[in-house]
Order: sequence, then structure tokens, then C-alpha cells
Amino acid sequence: MCQNCQQQQGFLAELIDSGLLIDTGIDGLYGRSGLFEEVVARFDDLITRYGGQDGAEVARFPPAMNRKHFERSGYLKSFPQLAGTVHAFEGDERAHAELLHNVSDGLDWTAGQKSTDIVLTPAACYVLYPVVAKRGPVGKGGALFDLQSYCFRHEPSKDPARMQLFRMREYVRFGTPDQVTEFRATWLERGQAMMASLGMPLHIDVANDPFFGRAGRMLANNQRDQRLKFELLIPIESVEKPTACLSFNYHQDHFGTTWGIKTEDGETAHTACVGFGMERVALALFKHHGFDVQTWPAAVRDVLWP
Amino acid sequence: MCQNCQQQQGFLAELIDSGLLIDTGIDGLYGRSGLFEEVVARFDDLITRYGGQDGAEVARFPPAMNRKHFERSGYLKSFPQLAGTVHAFEGDERAHAELLHNVSDGLDWTAGQKSTDIVLTPAACYVLYPVVAKRGPVGKGGALFDLQSYCFRHEPSKDPARMQLFRMREYVRFGTPDQVTEFRATWLERGQAMMASLGMPLHIDVANDPFFGRAGRMLANNQRDQRLKFELLIPIESVEKPTACLSFNYHQDHFGTTWGIKTEDGETAHTACVGFGMERVALALFKHHGFDVQTWPAAVRDVLWP
Repeated sequence: MCQNCQQQQGFLAELIDSGLLIDTGIDGLYGRSGLFEEVVARFDDLITRYGGQDGAEVARFPPAMNRKHFERSGYLKSFPQLAGTVHAFEGDERAHAELLHNVSDGLDWTAGQKSTDIVLTPAACYVLYPVVAKRGPVGKGGALFDLQSYCFRHEPSKDPARMQLFRMREYVRFGTPDQVTEFRATWLERGQAMMASLGMPLHIDVANDPFFGRAGRMLANNQRDQRLKFELLIPIESVEKPTACLSFNYHQDHFGTTWGIKTEDGETAHTACVGFGMERVALALFKHHGFDVQTWPAAVRDVLWP
Repeated sequence: MCQNCQQQQGFLAELIDSGLLIDTGIDGLYGRSGLFEEVVARFDDLITRYGGQDGAEVARFPPAMNRKHFERSGYLKSFPQLAGTVHAFEGDERAHAELLHNVSDGLDWTAGQKSTDIVLTPAACYVLYPVVAKRGPVGKGGALFDLQSYCFRHEPSKDPARMQLFRMREYVRFGTPDQVTEFRATWLERGQAMMASLGMPLHIDVANDPFFGRAGRMLANNQRDQRLKFELLIPIESVEKPTACLSFNYHQDHFGTTWGIKTEDGETAHTACVGFGMERVALALFKHHGFDVQTWPAAVRDVLWP
């Protein structure tokens, strides 16, 4: 076992022993205690204190999305291995009897499940683009949304910061290239200020997403070379491999072209987003300040409980 | 089209036109506006004002659960048609190329998806029983939990009160038959008082769950005859068929036996729960008091915004 893995199991075991996380028997799928949720809620409020004056439209979506929209998004090109499709039983009583026999015999009962028209949401903003497209061109100032959603990534792991289901808060900006790159630059500053105020050791780097296969290597190189995605990294499990807790993405015209989203001038809208990994930030706080929030540095407590 | 269906489309269309719900192209899968979420949050707080002094342990789980736990729960006997299994891609680059071809040709690309070890959560408390079982016998006073979770039910509908993914708050009680039936009786009173304070027309009735098939009819009869589940019903789409917004369930020893949960005396624990349909209550409020919360009755506003 690598040293990082040992550390990961150590921290995960501590979190479960302390009651902050609740084991479900599945790597990457955990319940959380009331205290953990309180920290998430206070960080959620902190994000709003930084971004709440920008006039974003608040929208909240359930943890799944329209499969047709997902197919069109391009996600399957880059990360097929992370996606989760939702399947359901559509059989008759005989098929039901067989299903129950398979369950009680410990056999696979899922082979007959049919895919439904929804898939689990891979990132909070994927749901939004077709909604905005349907409204017509974004206005002169562009558009800004405030999202939060559960997201799914099929990557079972003993690293508690790599959950299969986790919450992502996002601000998403639509507009001209200037408008959206300014938005991203603003949040790069805000994000660092926010996380520094929480006493977090951090640095910014270009992202290193797990694009699939050989073709994916090209996409990864392109993302890096064009500096399309930055991450705010904090050591949680490992100092050598710190965890991306916030990300700052410039999609260029990818979603604008995909969905036919236009600016007022008839140009294809560019988009950018800033994403906050809610569980990851909470874990970073517990890692660096300890499991007892009463003993956290006063300055950090004042920021979270103003 | 039946008259109820017309009414349903009418209310759903109004909710979408007003921006309270956001269309995703899938029946039963909606985004919600900031105002809708504010009402959900205020109702969430109201539940806590009624139940927060009881000493419940707070736990929050993601919208999916361990498939092995789900199989053992018995849900597939009663409601196989409502369950949602999560499937993922496990192929190589060649399979990926084929998947992408199928997507771009509009063919089914989901046939190769393999079932994962998680399923969507059907009711907030299903996740909890194996967790409690693992802890050993519940103490002398029994045990009490405060949950909230997204739940999935595969029943696409134009009735906005019948969502495929929705949030359920729950209190769950473990203990002797006396302890858990007293809990349920308390919440039957509290639930009615709470919803009356919100100006809701309501009545209590035995539940009418959609058990599957002919065998399911027996289960449904048993549930009714033994008065195991009551619902607090409020007209949303229809006066003739009001919507269950809260439910009060006595599981007898079903989960205690299934999971081997014992009381301090070594008896099998009985369980009961009260569930709150968060979106349904918000919809009931918008239905009866209008879409503009500023014009809601002062008494109702005082309850929600104390």
C-alpha cells in the first residue's frame, strides 16, 4: 500500500470514528453529521457574502438531469467512466418474480433494468445551459447564475475528499469573452482571499482532469496549454497531491456553440464558471483546524460565524 | 384527457411560467427558483422548531445508497417499478468509440452500462437502518434521528407534486412498540398543528401506496387494515385526490427484524417515522396562498418568518 493510501485510510477512519462521516459500506458514499453539515452551511453563506451582490439568478436543480441534454453536452467524450445513468424496472409480474428470485439467490437482478431518460448530474452547471439557451439571447450585460447541486462521479476511493456524490456550488457567467474572463479573474482573486481567511494553505495551478483514454490526453493537453481551468488546491490527504477545492473554468464558446446560446449582438456566448466543492472545503477545515470547531482559530470562527 | 390532468398541466404551466419551477424537458424533474428554495428552507426550520427539542441525532445522506442494503430492505418486493439503479461505463477505448458513435447516431448507448453498487435512495430512512444496526442495541430510551435526503421514484408525471427527485425530511424513532407508537401519535398531532398554522386545508387518512402487482394488493390491504401508515393530505392538484404532504409510518418490527436491531432488553426494536415532503409542502403553500409570498396571510408569514 502506498503511503498516501495509508494516510487516506487514516483520515477517513478518523472522520468515521469521530462521527463526522457515516460509513455506508461504499467507498465515496458517506453520511455526514449535523456538525459537518453546519460547517458546509456556514461555508455556503460565506460564498454568498462574496458573490451575493453580483445579482446572480438563484436556481437549484435535483441531482439528475435530462439524458438528451447530457448526451449533447460532450461529457461522454471526455469522462465516460465517471457518468452515472439511472435505470428502472419496467417488467410485468413474471419479471418481478424472477427479479425477486435473483435478489434472494444473490444473483444479478439488474440485467433487466432499462435505462430511464435521466442521468446523474456530473457538474452543477451542465443542467443550466439548455435552460438558458431556451430563453433566447442573453442581455447586454450577459447573464449570471448561482447554482448548487449534488454531482455524481463514479470513482470509488478511500480518499474522503473524492466522494462519488458530493455538493457543488457554482456561479456561472454567460457573455462576451471579456465579460466571462473578467468574471473568472474576479473569482480567482475572491477564491484565494476567501480560503486564506479560513486559514487554509493553498495554491493555484492549472487543472489536471482525468480525461479518458488516448484521445483524452489531447483534450487534457489542450486544457492545460490554453489555461482553461485553474484549481485552488489545499492539502487534505497529501501534501504532494493536494485536493482541488475550488475550480475556475473558462469554457470559451463550447457550451455557447453546443446549445446555440447567443449574446445580444448575435455572437456565440462564451461561458465561465467557478465551482466550490462543499464537502472538500469542509474536510479541509477539519483537517487543518481539527475536529472540534470550538478550538478552531478565532479568526476562522469569526469568518464562518460572523 | 381527464379533468384532473388538465388541471395538473395548468398548475405546472403556471409554476414554470412564474419561474418558481424550471423545466428540464423531463416530467417530474424540475429546477427551483431562489424563492421556492427560501420557502423550503423556512418550512425546514419550522419542522426543527417542532422537533428540535427531542434530542434527535442529525444525519444527512447523499441521494444514493448501498445496493446490498437496498436489496435487503424489502423495497423491491413492494415497489420495484419506482426504484432507480445507477449504472456506469466500464469499457475500454474501443467500447468508448462505439459508445460515442451510438450517441452521435441517436442510438441507445446505455446497453453496455454496468450496474454499480449504489441505487438511488427511495426514502430518507432506508439508509439509516443498517447504520443503526451496526452500532448495536439502542439504549433504554430508544433512539431518534433527524434526516433529510433527496429521494427518487420513477413515476414521471405532469403533476408537479409527483416529482421523480424530491427532498424528504424525516424523524425516525427506534425502540419498544410503546415508544415508537407514542412518537407517531405525537407527530400526528404536531403535523396537523404545524400545517394548520400554515393555513392549509388538510385531513388525515390511511395511506394508499402503489404496491406492485397482485401480490402487492395484499400488502396494501395489510397496510390499510393495520393502520400502519397515515398521511396528511392537502389538495394541490385536485380536491378529490389530495396530495400526501406528510406521512406517519409504523413499521412494526420490519426493519428491526431485517437488520437485527435490538432494544436494550434484547427484544427486536420497532421503528416508526414521520416524513415531510419538502417540495409538496412548498407547492401546497404556493397553491393556496399564491405565488407572491408578500401577499400571503400575515399569520402564515409570521409562522414561516418568525
